[in-house]
Amino acid sequence: MINVDPLVAGGVPPSHVVEQLQPYMKGYPLCLYCPGDVHRVKKPDIAKLVEEELPSFMGADVVRLVHGAREGAFLALFALYKHHVKERKDKAPFVILDGNTHYSMVLAVERSMLTPVLTEVEESQYRVVPEDFARKIEEIEDSHSKEPLAVIVNYPDGKYGNLPELKRIAKIAKEHNVYVIVDGAYSIGRMPFNMKSFDVDVAIASAHKSMACIGPLGVVGMEESVGRIVTKESEYREGKEVELLGCSARGLPTVCLFFVMPHLKKRVGEWEEKVKLANYFVERAERELGFELRGEKPHRHDLLNFDTSVLYEKFQKEGKDRFFLYRYLKKEGIIGVKPGITKTVKLSTYLLNKEEADFVIETFSKLLA
Amino acid sequence: MINVDPLVAGGVPPSHVVEQLQPYMKGYPLCLYCPGDVHRVKKPDIAKLVEEELPSFMGADVVRLVHGAREGAFLALFALYKHHVKERKDKAPFVILDGNTHYSMVLAVERSMLTPVLTEVEESQYRVVPEDFARKIEEIEDSHSKEPLAVIVNYPDGKYGNLPELKRIAKIAKEHNVYVIVDGAYSIGRMPFNMKSFDVDVAIASAHKSMACIGPLGVVGMEESVGRIVTKESEYREGKEVELLGCSARGLPTVCLFFVMPHLKKRVGEWEEKVKLANYFVERAERELGFELRGEKPHRHDLLNFDTSVLYEKFQKEGKDRFFLYRYLKKEGIIGVKPGITKTVKLSTYLLNKEEADFVIETFSKLLA
Repeated sequence: MINVDPLVAGGVPPSHVVEQLQPYMKGYPLCLYCPGDVHRVKKPDIAKLVEEELPSFMGADVVRLVHGAREGAFLALFALYKHHVKERKDKAPFVILDGNTHYSMVLAVERSMLTPVLTEVEESQYRVVPEDFARKIEEIEDSHSKEPLAVIVNYPDGKYGNLPELKRIAKIAKEHNVYVIVDGAYSIGRMPFNMKSFDVDVAIASAHKSMACIGPLGVVGMEESVGRIVTKESEYREGKEVELLGCSARGLPTVCLFFVMPHLKKRVGEWEEKVKLANYFVERAERELGFELRGEKPHRHDLLNFDTSVLYEKFQKEGKDRFFLYRYLKKEGIIGVKPGITKTVKLSTYLLNKEEADFVIETFSKLLA
Repeated sequence: MINVDPLVAGGVPPSHVVEQLQPYMKGYPLCLYCPGDVHRVKKPDIAKLVEEELPSFMGADVVRLVHGAREGAFLALFALYKHHVKERKDKAPFVILDGNTHYSMVLAVERSMLTPVLTEVEESQYRVVPEDFARKIEEIEDSHSKEPLAVIVNYPDGKYGNLPELKRIAKIAKEHNVYVIVDGAYSIGRMPFNMKSFDVDVAIASAHKSMACIGPLGVVGMEESVGRIVTKESEYREGKEVELLGCSARGLPTVCLFFVMPHLKKRVGEWEEKVKLANYFVERAERELGFELRGEKPHRHDLLNFDTSVLYEKFQKEGKDRFFLYRYLKKEGIIGVKPGITKTVKLSTYLLNKEEADFVIETFSKLLA
């Protein structure tokens, strides 16, 4: 089967890693050798993964494992809420998110007892408007006499695969003394990413979305001073970190990330090829199928969102139900297109080679003939 | 290898379940068929697992999946904190925990911005003293003019495997209008357990500790009114639960629990045999090895904690280092005894049959000869 599911594309472990995981599925005692937190375990060397490999992979000073990107955002936001809003009272309880944000980021803000504010998105290609971060920050400064706690940038968003101008947004936030959190669920592990090159405070990765891992697992990379706030130790139990509840993501997904790192380091170097294939697909889909890309052009990510009105109208005319497309593609050996939707189609070319991309185009083409 | 590790004993998936998981390790699109939260997915039928099977398995009105027992305690405590301490201001921000509590429960309290208070434990067999819950609750009522938010009972604790008088403690708490949370990380999935028979509000299970699952995964069972508080929906994103960040434990461990349920239902029926073997082991260890059980007798759980001064003294005399025992047992085919500790030994007989239990006794016996 050809898998074009954008939610799965970056999360498939290589088969040699699946092999390596087998002994860990039969009661391997990871905790037996644990000096107190899974990120200190030396056998396998999770300590090295957390202290050396991941920090260097994403340009972080401090790294912690969590259960996914949303859990990572909550980890950082809730710790920052306690430190700045509750204790020091030096920040207003607001978080500005780009207007394309994933819903889970809004929920991480809400769960942290903070209020989300969404920025504008440009209409034709759904690009995030950097200047609107400045406006929204200033509105809060004016009405609350304090700057908001943080901004969250989805890099890229999970709807259009657009990459916002992160460096520029981070600069705006920093000028206002506002923390910058990046949701890199669809970037870190797929493409080269370095927190320091963007000057952001927190970058969150999803191991099951873009790090070729079984789920649930996320990674939070932090700049040193945020790291100190997030990793604060318990008042009651020596050496245990409060926000991790004493131990982070324990279990098979963490072992998976340990084994998959060499593969990840290699594959991010092939990103340009992945983007080239995505744009090749876009070009053919627009020209030959009459699809229209919703999102920035040229595209800089494998996540593609098409206006497929041409399909929808044809199906309407022919009295086909809304699951017809899903069934047809599956019969032809293509999975990953959301069942029940034909007005727009979201897909990823990440797992495809050129022949498979051609096959997908041709399969749609037959349908429209 | 004979595995006596109490942290692993209840968490080993049967090999047929490991087989069933294999296709899900290669990018199976669980999210593709998701109507909004993993606990509503019908293929595989996670919805049925969460709405029918688990509630009936543990006697809960509402069930949610989380990433482990500690995350389950935090889920409940933080939601109750918001509802009662922050919004209604009708409870004092304190939680009373039994004196044998696992450290992670203390951290779940602390992370929820609540203060932990530990009860007394009786000296000879480390039994939790139920009356002390009443005293500690009343002290807070007197000094704060409000009852504390909750009590947490570890049933059993993870140090001695003692089963506190849960029904009596729950009755005391209920008389004072205090929520009762049970950490059943070492019970639910090993032994028959029904929340309703104890009249508790929240019961937390650990899938990787006692439900024969790969980790990380936990289950939170709730009585209806607590369930309503915990599953509150977002103000900003329709239908998404705030405390779950919109979607709970997604990934392989959840699929594992789905497949393992028939096995669990069966194995809790064999609990009496497990307890019988544990007591047989205790009896031989005390009589033949000179070990002394730390914990209640007769024992009602497979988790055994022995005073092994007899070993420690022998090793001291013979100039053996503190890793000698671990190495010796491993050489003989026994793993799961924590390296570096010989004054006390914690082990579980859960995975053993009688012959293996005898072999473990005899292996220690040779060492002492």
